[in-house]
Amino acid sequence: MTSEAENTRMAKSFLILGGARSGKSSYAEKLAEQSGLKLHYLATGRAWDSEMTERISIHKSRRGPQWQTLEEPLDLVEALRQLAKPENFILVDCLTLWVTNLMLAERDIETEFAKLEQLIPDLQGTVAFVSNEVGLGIVPENKMARDFRDHAGFLHQSVARQVSEVYFMAAGLSLKMKG
Amino acid sequence: MTSEAENTRMAKSFLILGGARSGKSSYAEKLAEQSGLKLHYLATGRAWDSEMTERISIHKSRRGPQWQTLEEPLDLVEALRQLAKPENFILVDCLTLWVTNLMLAERDIETEFAKLEQLIPDLQGTVAFVSNEVGLGIVPENKMARDFRDHAGFLHQSVARQVSEVYFMAAGLSLKMKG
Amino acid sequence: MTSEAENTRMAKSFLILGGARSGKSSYAEKLAEQSGLKLHYLATGRAWDSEMTERISIHKSRRGPQWQTLEEPLDLVEALRQLAKPENFILVDCLTLWVTNLMLAERDIETEFAKLEQLIPDLQGTVAFVSNEVGLGIVPENKMARDFRDHAGFLHQSVARQVSEVYFMAAGLSLKMKG
Repeated sequence: MTSEAENTRMAKSFLILGGARSGKSSYAEKLAEQSGLKLHYLATGRAWDSEMTERISIHKSRRGPQWQTLEEPLDLVEALRQLAKPENFILVDCLTLWVTNLMLAERDIETEFAKLEQLIPDLQGTVAFVSNEVGLGIVPENKMARDFRDHAGFLHQSVARQVSEVYFMAAGLSLKMKG
Repeated sequence: MTSEAENTRMAKSFLILGGARSGKSSYAEKLAEQSGLKLHYLATGRAWDSEMTERISIHKSRRGPQWQTLEEPLDLVEALRQLAKPENFILVDCLTLWVTNLMLAERDIETEFAKLEQLIPDLQGTVAFVSNEVGLGIVPENKMARDFRDHAGFLHQSVARQVSEVYFMAAGLSLKMKG
Repeated sequence: MTSEAENTRMAKSFLILGGARSGKSSYAEKLAEQSGLKLHYLATGRAWDSEMTERISIHKSRRGPQWQTLEEPLDLVEALRQLAKPENFILVDCLTLWVTNLMLAERDIETEFAKLEQLIPDLQGTVAFVSNEVGLGIVPENKMARDFRDHAGFLHQSVARQVSEVYFMAAGLSLKMKG
């Protein structure tokens, strides 16, 4: 058992996994705001259409002005490497959008995932990864959707191996799966 | 810690969340039948087609004659207000169908959700809400399906904030998430 | 409480439930390899197409040569009856493919499920059933997909009633739901 004080001194890492509107981002924001660290929001999403623009703007207005926002749709690993300092809490929102972006840009998915998995244990700052669990419905008919959910599942496994705590969210509530 | 006897004297409220055929309704019925209270089944579903008619009839025959059934596809909040008395256990089955009905009737979703969230802490009877978690698959291509799962997710969060116990069901088994 | 030694002497049975790429098969393989028993892989999948052939070959190469593999797409109950001996660990991968095969072959689903549920308590060997949870997305538009997820959900409930331990997997991590 470590005390609260020790916990906040240690570099931690979190994976917050859940369905649509399960309260993942809010939960991660709460973790961040309770940390007492400098708050960095690392957005992987791009506003492709009006629906997405609206979602991004809702998220932004919920977070206060104490948040620094950086958008990085592809080079997440490099952005993390630069932001990860002991005084920073970096909220990555979200991994599934990063997977989508990598697929659309035809990046080498396995290489990117391996680079991220290798980086996590060495990170100096505190990081929370938010991601959508998308593998609990019927097998999609669309091949690209099947590939996407395979990639997302493998990424969740590799991130979960490295982070210190993993939570599964539903209805705004968290179930601890690791840590 | 409260004793069993105290628990049964207190007005409780439950959210039973789970996937298709996860045993949600059976679990809620068991909670109701163990309560010793008068049993009220508040059905939000309407028999639109033969598949639905069959599902409703299977559910009905499983419940015994000690259940009073009321169908209310839209005005759930008002129906709850009238039924909620200390001697009653009200099983609402299910919230996701209510969301569908509100969308089809073009009701103001946010207003309805706010009314429900406000009502729950004041309810005098015991209530169990059954609902489908629908947000853990691939993002649906259909805009109405996306809106539906957003509404359902927000509703689950707001109900989960107010009820005393939340369970996540799979394979007929329950995981306690709150309470 | 039983000791470790007693646990390994008792015939156990497991249901490992989870989404796509949630680490279900790996987890079941680990349980099997830690058992010290003879390892039998009972595959319900048939290589219908190149995607499936590849998935099967990846799974096969991950398992070592100490595994005996048997393919049985339909007569799972009979295959289990023959393999279930005290010295054997049988990994059934997976139940959802078995459901698909039964549907395509137009077998009587309820009869098959009842035969399986009846068999489990009498099995002499150790068995782990791997299966996909598919009921946590939007209701599928396709009637066959809806029937499939209903069947899968009912099967999970009936297997979960009989096995000694049930796990829900996400991101390669397990949540114990029973046992």
